[in-house]
Amino acid sequence: MDKNNPIVGIQLERNGEIPIYVQLYQGIKEKIQKGELTQGEKLPPIRKIARDLDINNSTVVHALDALAREGLVYKHVGRGSFVSTILKGPGKMEGGAEVYDFSSLSPSPQLFPVQEFKRALNHVLDHYGGEALGYQPHRGYRPLREKMASFLEKEGIQVSPDFIQVISGSQQGIDIAAKVFLGQGETIFLEEPTYPGSLLTFQSRGARIIHIPITRSGLDFVELEKRLADFRPRLIYVMSRLQNPTGYSYTRDQKEQLLQMAYKYNFYIIEDDYLSLLDYGSDPQVEPSLKALDRWDRVILLKSFSKVLMPGLRLGFAILPEELQEKFLQGKYAADISSSGLLQRALFFYLQDDSWETHLQEIKKEFRSRYRLVKKFLQNAKPLLHFQDPGGGLFFWVRVNRGGNSNKLSRLAFARGIPIAQGSLFFAGEQNSPWFRLSFATGDQKSLEEGLKTLKNTLDDFQKEDEIEPVEKQGPIL
Amino acid sequence: MDKNNPIVGIQLERNGEIPIYVQLYQGIKEKIQKGELTQGEKLPPIRKIARDLDINNSTVVHALDALAREGLVYKHVGRGSFVSTILKGPGKMEGGAEVYDFSSLSPSPQLFPVQEFKRALNHVLDHYGGEALGYQPHRGYRPLREKMASFLEKEGIQVSPDFIQVISGSQQGIDIAAKVFLGQGETIFLEEPTYPGSLLTFQSRGARIIHIPITRSGLDFVELEKRLADFRPRLIYVMSRLQNPTGYSYTRDQKEQLLQMAYKYNFYIIEDDYLSLLDYGSDPQVEPSLKALDRWDRVILLKSFSKVLMPGLRLGFAILPEELQEKFLQGKYAADISSSGLLQRALFFYLQDDSWETHLQEIKKEFRSRYRLVKKFLQNAKPLLHFQDPGGGLFFWVRVNRGGNSNKLSRLAFARGIPIAQGSLFFAGEQNSPWFRLSFATGDQKSLEEGLKTLKNTLDDFQKEDEIEPVEKQGPIL
Repeated sequence: MDKNNPIVGIQLERNGEIPIYVQLYQGIKEKIQKGELTQGEKLPPIRKIARDLDINNSTVVHALDALAREGLVYKHVGRGSFVSTILKGPGKMEGGAEVYDFSSLSPSPQLFPVQEFKRALNHVLDHYGGEALGYQPHRGYRPLREKMASFLEKEGIQVSPDFIQVISGSQQGIDIAAKVFLGQGETIFLEEPTYPGSLLTFQSRGARIIHIPITRSGLDFVELEKRLADFRPRLIYVMSRLQNPTGYSYTRDQKEQLLQMAYKYNFYIIEDDYLSLLDYGSDPQVEPSLKALDRWDRVILLKSFSKVLMPGLRLGFAILPEELQEKFLQGKYAADISSSGLLQRALFFYLQDDSWETHLQEIKKEFRSRYRLVKKFLQNAKPLLHFQDPGGGLFFWVRVNRGGNSNKLSRLAFARGIPIAQGSLFFAGEQNSPWFRLSFATGDQKSLEEGLKTLKNTLDDFQKEDEIEPVEKQGPIL
Repeated sequence: MDKNNPIVGIQLERNGEIPIYVQLYQGIKEKIQKGELTQGEKLPPIRKIARDLDINNSTVVHALDALAREGLVYKHVGRGSFVSTILKGPGKMEGGAEVYDFSSLSPSPQLFPVQEFKRALNHVLDHYGGEALGYQPHRGYRPLREKMASFLEKEGIQVSPDFIQVISGSQQGIDIAAKVFLGQGETIFLEEPTYPGSLLTFQSRGARIIHIPITRSGLDFVELEKRLADFRPRLIYVMSRLQNPTGYSYTRDQKEQLLQMAYKYNFYIIEDDYLSLLDYGSDPQVEPSLKALDRWDRVILLKSFSKVLMPGLRLGFAILPEELQEKFLQGKYAADISSSGLLQRALFFYLQDDSWETHLQEIKKEFRSRYRLVKKFLQNAKPLLHFQDPGGGLFFWVRVNRGGNSNKLSRLAFARGIPIAQGSLFFAGEQNSPWFRLSFATGDQKSLEEGLKTLKNTLDDFQKEDEIEPVEKQGPIL
């Protein structure tokens, strides 16, 4: 297909009954669904599409609007239109024997404490019966919120259970925050690159999104302050510890600076802390969280157990500034009334005894050794690959030094059954990136070793420059 | 407090550091939280507040905007500002010995099939282990969607499981529909009176809300068509069977008319079917659902098990028009990634054997006899009370013929430990209504009989016209 303008292939029936813009809409949609237009890919400028297809600009605009309404395409202020990065369908690859999924952050199910959790569930049903299955307080099961408050205290966060809202996973926390704190057209700042799920949510809210580049040394605060003055955002969404996808962690100094700006420019910070428990004790993120340093009550802290316990719990916690908690509660009510009382109680009882601590030590041990395996591999893959040590978490952020673009490597890897997450998925506005995210969350050490062997061969191919047909992965990057 | 202007009591410090509008905002908020301003209550006109407090209109506007942003107050086009009807806090009354809660639609926990569901949960954990606790396909557990498709077939609805989206309860279905199908300022039509949870959601989306009165004979279609031409809504939200709070059910003819208008004026219908299984076989709602009659694929059908099985499941189904299902899926992804895989699988296995049918027969038997008790009571309460027979469901919609306003009756009933849901909670724009909703979902027949005795005495007091101090109930009207 014409790399300069993938749209050219679309046939338009000039005198047909279907309006031209609908035909164009359908044609582009088809190309997205076939994977001819890939996630994050930039579409040609409106004028170019119109010229190449010999139609009016307004016809193109109509078609793009229709695609945007369906969430298939989004507009990036000043940069044009892009194919959405939301990844549809089930969390598995479609077809292809999978060696190892380097693209997924779903922890290996065999690491879940199934038996302990089963005991907790049965305990709850035996002791509470139907009560656990009725409607629940919208704010969440109080003993669980008290438990979370005591956990937070150990992290240096003093908070009343009244300001802790149980949510159905961090994603719901992001969605509610977007709904209740971001008016149409209001501005949110996001780290770039960032987690695609947050991008999607803020786009769907109709917010104006400004991307602040994040580097190993954290946000560029000079740049940040300039944009703060220009755009006056209402919110900024950050993962200050083991950021997704970079694995970077803010230094204490960077956190202090950000908090001061939040105070000075009167915005709130959503701190998505989804992974900090997986610290392998060799990095900056032993630093306290933003919330722990928050003197001005500017931080909405989102805590999740999805990565460290079980994603299927669909439970998380929003720790809220006093003046926001009522409004957030109303947003929670409108979102799903309340989270499952059964799962909340089961989690509470699970967290009561030592099995939680034991589990945490076990998975840290397991993931640390996987982390070391991959780190060793990446050290040997220099100079082709460049990476920085996150010192924790479930993935590395890796740059391809030769070849420049990770999309090609991603296609090669996919074809060999080792999908990786190409960097373009995490940049709202770019279709090419030298970066990719290499996760070691799934499978076990044996399959990981297999995967790394295959990755080695893939890198050899990659250097030989021989390319194969593009195939696109369908599955959530979480 | 001055009934004509409850705002008058607010003290403003003219030369203080806090801006006047902030002081006014805080004062009104306090009155709402203290219950001095009650849910659904109309605030005095801006000009009156400004005059009485000797401040500018614009100051009042600023204060009301701040309250509206927090969801404490909402503006009703043409009718002024009202205290929000969202009901906060836990689902129980605060204080007071409760005789019977006539205001709640939470089914009695002792009717939940706890043991059967426990078996299902254990079966799932034994057979699937961690798999049930990992990330799930966003669309939902396929066997459960297939099961739902076969249920729907019995109701005359032919639909592929691909167009069935598992949601975390009907409320989430409403929230997602509002998010993905209603642009800022776009119009939705709601029945009036209607379910406050839907009102809240559409308000939070910034939609323009138009209320269409519903009567025993259904929507006024002449009026409806007039407003359709004027407002061109994108969506209409209806409960066509056992409507909440009226208990009315559309006739087949009314459904056909509504579908034809949806086609003619190109809008979609959200059909919230939360209760139709509780049909006591004496009424119009044996009629097929709108979805079953939908020739033009205009209906988004929401199905819930909350009232007939267990609210705590937090599981429901959205049956979608083909052209909307992709976009809805993206909305679901942004909302909470996926619903609990454990609960989805447990529900599937629970629905596999006969225990579901048995349960349904049991609760129908139980609720039917409660229904008869209340019906008999209401017949004896004529002419003071007027009601129409819903022929099913969990409540009656009752009108107070003398006294006119149900708020006073509601206060008397609350004081005696038998809260009822005063009609004003279900009308966006009215603080006084002769109607109230009398539910028999909670408790058991014995407590219901107690409650009815107390209600009898309350009605006697009510007629004696002696009033007591207002107290407001805090709890969700579901």
